[in-house]
Amino acid sequence: MDGLKQMIQSGDWKGEKHVPVIHAPEKITSDTLTEIKISIGDAIKHPNTLEHHIAWFKLFYLPATGKFPIELGTYEFRAHGEGNAFTEPCVSTNVKLQTSGILYALSYCNLHGLWESSKEIVIE
Amino acid sequence: MDGLKQMIQSGDWKGEKHVPVIHAPEKITSDTLTEIKISIGDAIKHPNTLEHHIAWFKLFYLPATGKFPIELGTYEFRAHGEGNAFTEPCVSTNVKLQTSGILYALSYCNLHGLWESSKEIVIE
Amino acid sequence: MDGLKQMIQSGDWKGEKHVPVIHAPEKITSDTLTEIKISIGDAIKHPNTLEHHIAWFKLFYLPATGKFPIELGTYEFRAHGEGNAFTEPCVSTNVKLQTSGILYALSYCNLHGLWESSKEIVIE
Amino acid sequence: MDGLKQMIQSGDWKGEKHVPVIHAPEKITSDTLTEIKISIGDAIKHPNTLEHHIAWFKLFYLPATGKFPIELGTYEFRAHGEGNAFTEPCVSTNVKLQTSGILYALSYCNLHGLWESSKEIVIE
Ligand SMILES: [Fe+3]
Ligand SMILES: [Fe+3]
Ligand SMILES: [Fe+3]
Ligand SMILES: [Fe+3]
Repeated sequence: MDGLKQMIQSGDWKGEKHVPVIHAPEKITSDTLTEIKISIGDAIKHPNTLEHHIAWFKLFYLPATGKFPIELGTYEFRAHGEGNAFTEPCVSTNVKLQTSGILYALSYCNLHGLWESSKEIVIE
Repeated sequence: MDGLKQMIQSGDWKGEKHVPVIHAPEKITSDTLTEIKISIGDAIKHPNTLEHHIAWFKLFYLPATGKFPIELGTYEFRAHGEGNAFTEPCVSTNVKLQTSGILYALSYCNLHGLWESSKEIVIE
Repeated sequence: MDGLKQMIQSGDWKGEKHVPVIHAPEKITSDTLTEIKISIGDAIKHPNTLEHHIAWFKLFYLPATGKFPIELGTYEFRAHGEGNAFTEPCVSTNVKLQTSGILYALSYCNLHGLWESSKEIVIE
Repeated sequence: MDGLKQMIQSGDWKGEKHVPVIHAPEKITSDTLTEIKISIGDAIKHPNTLEHHIAWFKLFYLPATGKFPIELGTYEFRAHGEGNAFTEPCVSTNVKLQTSGILYALSYCNLHGLWESSKEIVIE
């Protein structure tokens, strides 16, 4: 029996519309407020309807000196037509980090499950 | 006995560090992707420690034609020192709206409870 | 312009299907694991479809000695037909409390907005 | 570079205190309200302090006829000493399912990262 981990999908966001893209500076200054953006649909738009939508992102950070991913934030997209309002799967958050490492984005489509991507970050 | 509603606080963000600020264009084009930013600490910084921090924002929207607030999103700030990482209480989200109305931000400090603010928006 | 607080609705759960009901013992032993249940639909069932459902509960606690509500938990109901699975708006959580006070439940219907209820608790 | 999926840990809950335990009936009647409980600490208690605690569970369901895990719910444990209140990592939720499959619990410790477990369910 597979674990949940075996069901987390990945791929190239240029060809697979479920893959979250992490936008962050190549080099970050230690302990300085840094904006990180996560988005889905940079190349191919994902549907955004009540029946089929991206429900949330989670952002994790693995410091090079650590063994466990640390959750930086959760971002939920809640309106999918209620009041003719739509929340798009795109969010920017602000963090302060001290150690180089890897950022991970996890996203969930209500029909197509869990997807992840990652981005190395260098702290100067 | 007071309700929870009586405990939702508000104030001027220039003098009260718990009040969330909603940053949005004065006029929004109908059905067009619009960035809305919510932040705390624009004038006076709030502490960001494990013992005392802003834990989340919620963003709601009341269309002028509606009676009930619609949730646009939830944004949780998760790292408060774990791995020397800190998530700051600031987030940008992208929405599409069709009707003028009011945006509401709700925020929660783990020591000082619930706070709200609002901003009118005009859709052209 | 009304605040968000003016839009938090309440009522008698026996006649209004959106009101969350808090189930907790009348008297709780200090610092002892206590089960608290929150439910909607004890008297009148609320619809549970993709188009119309209860999306989440939050549970807060105001100690008699405190001024601000403390969040005990957030509970999100995620499946509304995906894979023919439905999550019902009912949840039990376990807490330890030391001081008498008031419990508050806040719930959100994607069409009918925010609702609250409360229950006094006595700690022995 | 490992993905996030490689960092989701598992183990035997009798010897590893981070592993969530799924409590559900062996056989479930189709489309009937069924209580599912998730807990951590059945054999070995996990710390529950501000500095070190279980922050949330997610519950997923993979129908035998499907390819993607469906999220049933998210459960966040919010109080870790605020007002001397503590939320324990234990939650019960109510679902209706139509197809046999696998339940997955995912949990997050703010110091020791992501953990998962699973349980087969048979629908009659
Ligand atoms: Fe999809
Ligand atoms: Fe505060
Ligand atoms: Fe409703
Ligand atoms: Fe731990």
